Amino acid sequence: MNITICFDKLDPAPWVQGVQAALPQARVSAWAPGAPSADLAIVWAPPQQFVDEQTGLQALFNIGAGVDALLQLRLPPALKVVRLDDAGMSVQMAEYVCHAVIRHFREFDGYDADTQAGKWSYRRPRSRADFAVGVMGLGVLGERVAKALQVFDFPVNGYSRSARQIDGVRCFAGPGQLNDFLKATRILVNLMPLTPETENILNRQTLSRLQRGGYLINVARGRHLVEQDLIALIDEDHLAGAMLDVFRTEPLPAEHPFWRHPKITVTPHTSARTLRDESIAQIVGKILALQRGEPIRGVVDPQRGY
Amino acid sequence: MNITICFDKLDPAPWVQGVQAALPQARVSAWAPGAPSADLAIVWAPPQQFVDEQTGLQALFNIGAGVDALLQLRLPPALKVVRLDDAGMSVQMAEYVCHAVIRHFREFDGYDADTQAGKWSYRRPRSRADFAVGVMGLGVLGERVAKALQVFDFPVNGYSRSARQIDGVRCFAGPGQLNDFLKATRILVNLMPLTPETENILNRQTLSRLQRGGYLINVARGRHLVEQDLIALIDEDHLAGAMLDVFRTEPLPAEHPFWRHPKITVTPHTSARTLRDESIAQIVGKILALQRGEPIRGVVDPQRGY
Repeated sequence: MNITICFDKLDPAPWVQGVQAALPQARVSAWAPGAPSADLAIVWAPPQQFVDEQTGLQALFNIGAGVDALLQLRLPPALKVVRLDDAGMSVQMAEYVCHAVIRHFREFDGYDADTQAGKWSYRRPRSRADFAVGVMGLGVLGERVAKALQVFDFPVNGYSRSARQIDGVRCFAGPGQLNDFLKATRILVNLMPLTPETENILNRQTLSRLQRGGYLINVARGRHLVEQDLIALIDEDHLAGAMLDVFRTEPLPAEHPFWRHPKITVTPHTSARTLRDESIAQIVGKILALQRGEPIRGVVDPQRGY
Repeated sequence: MNITICFDKLDPAPWVQGVQAALPQARVSAWAPGAPSADLAIVWAPPQQFVDEQTGLQALFNIGAGVDALLQLRLPPALKVVRLDDAGMSVQMAEYVCHAVIRHFREFDGYDADTQAGKWSYRRPRSRADFAVGVMGLGVLGERVAKALQVFDFPVNGYSRSARQIDGVRCFAGPGQLNDFLKATRILVNLMPLTPETENILNRQTLSRLQRGGYLINVARGRHLVEQDLIALIDEDHLAGAMLDVFRTEPLPAEHPFWRHPKITVTPHTSARTLRDESIAQIVGKILALQRGEPIRGVVDPQRGY
């Protein structure tokens, strides 16, 4: 079995070593243009040339949860695309989102500003009943985030394409229930896959349906968000602010207004990192399952886009 | 039944109104010096004169979890002292502590500083196995905090005076196991009651036993901590920093070095506020239970101090 590894902007060497150590019987190597086709590939945002040359592949393993970059390529219809599920990402996502929700709800940025000014301040406690959190996208990551938020007694809404049931979460499904979901939500957490249907889904029309004083946490993809609509709704005081980890262009360009907006907190796409050891273990497990003819999780439906 | 209310630095009027509405058959009033003794009292840090004059009291209800201020008074030995248990405080404490732990573990302060400098930065993910959290004090608040931390897969240690068993928490009990608890801990959360035994318990000797790069979260009482020992251990790089909500003197004096220390985050005793509606409901419930001769939670053992 030959395995090729092709990454954009990431050194494949420790991955070659890690996969080789876990699968001593395989031949594992970093892709180079013109190399003969392998049987399996582990990739992050490979070029079209990679797919065009590697014609013998049975499966492509994506080292992230989002496969939007991969699905923009022309792929052979029979090629199995497998995305990472969890592999240490869901706990990171729960951390990032709970931190962002608590930071906003408990006004820690305001306390920090007061402290820096040497001021011992009093702020009236706010009621968590007024801060319903809505999680868009109830996959492995969204479900874990929704459950973690319940630990802090926030009302939690969930929105997904197909109907879901999660204990303690008020679930909405499909475009017909999107408005009701937004109207019931004060803090919106975006964890949707990026597909042609969800691109630009966070826009003036949808974000203005959030409850007054709404807050956006975007941890999915920058292309979900119409950036100027967010800024306008914050500047009009309909939204209280946002914490953003993903952007249409990354790194965020130096001149972008998000950097300096007083109500927007920027982080550099760090909400849930791919953890090498956990990811290699998961991909190797799936390779062995495929060899035994067993079903695996995370196989992408190219029509659905995730 | 006569109920008197005596608060230091807090307007009793809305409490008089709230308790009166819940107990229409009682006579509820704010204490004034020289008033005849009531049957029950609701207090926060009352003066000795209050206790000396109110000689007919059967019970004192404290509107906080910590009764250290109350126990410094000379109280009649037969007087029942009842503290608030939970009443909306434990979820606030879980929020505050989880926020502080995640903020430190995920280096959000560092990301914020980079963002303010317009820098898109990369920080290597840290392993949560290296960030065991130790919760000192496993009462209603400590237990809820310990459980909330487990949602984020941190190793959690617990320390209490008498032995406890909590699912998923490595429990240590009594002074004989304090050193082992500290050595197993990287992030220390103080939720102990303040008693003669626990005053100054966070000092050079104990804090230096924390794992290198340790971090302190103090949400109990300022008098647990020897402040100059904390600063020295941070400046010697044994500790990475601290997030402090309570201080020996509150408000924190303007000249105090904590305000400006780059590795210390100060908040103005806001980790878990007494919520009026929840507290009145709990105290009224306990008053009715006492009238029916039923046992109630939160009765303080004056010898133990909590």
